[in-house]
Amino acid sequence: MPSLSTYQHDLEYSYAPGIFPSMEALLHAPESVTRLLVDSKSTQKEGVQKLMELAQTHNVRIEQADKVLAKISGKDNCFASAVFLKNEQALNRDTNHIVLHNPSDFGNLGTILRTALGMGYQDIAIVTPAADVFDPRVVRASMGAMFSMRIERFESFNVYFEKYQNHTFFPFMLDSSVPLKQGVQQKKEPFSLIFGNEGKGLPKEFAQLGTPVRIEHNTQIDSLNLSIAASIGMYAFNQTKGE
Amino acid sequence: MPSLSTYQHDLEYSYAPGIFPSMEALLHAPESVTRLLVDSKSTQKEGVQKLMELAQTHNVRIEQADKVLAKISGKDNCFASAVFLKNEQALNRDTNHIVLHNPSDFGNLGTILRTALGMGYQDIAIVTPAADVFDPRVVRASMGAMFSMRIERFESFNVYFEKYQNHTFFPFMLDSSVPLKQGVQQKKEPFSLIFGNEGKGLPKEFAQLGTPVRIEHNTQIDSLNLSIAASIGMYAFNQTKGE
Repeated sequence: MPSLSTYQHDLEYSYAPGIFPSMEALLHAPESVTRLLVDSKSTQKEGVQKLMELAQTHNVRIEQADKVLAKISGKDNCFASAVFLKNEQALNRDTNHIVLHNPSDFGNLGTILRTALGMGYQDIAIVTPAADVFDPRVVRASMGAMFSMRIERFESFNVYFEKYQNHTFFPFMLDSSVPLKQGVQQKKEPFSLIFGNEGKGLPKEFAQLGTPVRIEHNTQIDSLNLSIAASIGMYAFNQTKGE
Repeated sequence: MPSLSTYQHDLEYSYAPGIFPSMEALLHAPESVTRLLVDSKSTQKEGVQKLMELAQTHNVRIEQADKVLAKISGKDNCFASAVFLKNEQALNRDTNHIVLHNPSDFGNLGTILRTALGMGYQDIAIVTPAADVFDPRVVRASMGAMFSMRIERFESFNVYFEKYQNHTFFPFMLDSSVPLKQGVQQKKEPFSLIFGNEGKGLPKEFAQLGTPVRIEHNTQIDSLNLSIAASIGMYAFNQTKGE
């Protein structure tokens, strides 16, 4: 069995650092978990014990790996980490999607995944270039939500569009003239809520895709944080019956 | 003039690291800015030049302080930083408030300030113990929004309550039976939206204060991130006319 590296985006596996994310991995995607790393000083902790039981149930190898854990967790204490195979899956054609166009921040990405799962969106499209969605920092910020979702990456928006043309599209754009509250009245399932990069937003031509919507805020700020905008969008679409 | 320290919460001053936050400080709260620190290798940059012009307009002393900048910014490059006196102010009695009860995360706090400013909430109450709202990490995450707001800290919620009894209260609680959409129908200005700690939420007795509301999400997640919950709350209250 090869020895483990600190995380790099070209590896086939990644880490779910922490008890909670590791638990989510073992509960919801046990087939993708290849090992459970535990800190030798923490094996008596209740959370770690539960993880080890779950690992045994699924025939997942358990290793004491203090050095690797220290490396992957940086400054924070990390008692355990699941090692999982990165698992991209085609999205469900018939459900609503969240599309992230070139997201660049690990924390935003994780927070969006967590909110999406809670709001009932389990299909996430990521158009690259983008922050690596399997980076341990994303796993941690998502609190392991990603293990209950389908995540598919696309090298351009066109590839996504060709594959999921059956959707109605709602690009979120700062300069749209349609306030979100009004835009959601056009809701027709399955739909895709599309959000641009943190700094640049979406390219102008996205306005042609469907109903571009704007989250109203005053001019005292330039824009909302990406995870905030995406979460408000998901919430608003959940509140409206649409057509 | 005393030499500058790395930030500590008992100092009278703090830092606004970065060009954008420093600009906000000099534009919206120049009276609180005591110095502008610039990196000696960056004085030709356009953003730094603009900062220096603004500083001169307001008779703010400019210093080349490469070492201090490196210290306060950690890993990130930091070309400039305003040094500002921490400035707590009594809230406006007649406007709507955001009340944060024991928030513990710097990033959440900053993101909430930024969203609040954009959504038209300029009065923020913070009930301690709480993350230090003047910490440079909060300033940075707020993108300098805090320089356009009133921030007042309280040692208990009772102190806040006694002072601003004229408000109607909407505590956000996971176990409330009133969905947010329904709760906002009770909106009556001035109101206070109250959010609890990241891990613990609000104590149960807060339900007695007014109309407790719940942001609906499924059971696949335990709770929404605090900055997400607060932002959805602000958005929803902005969309409703209320009584």
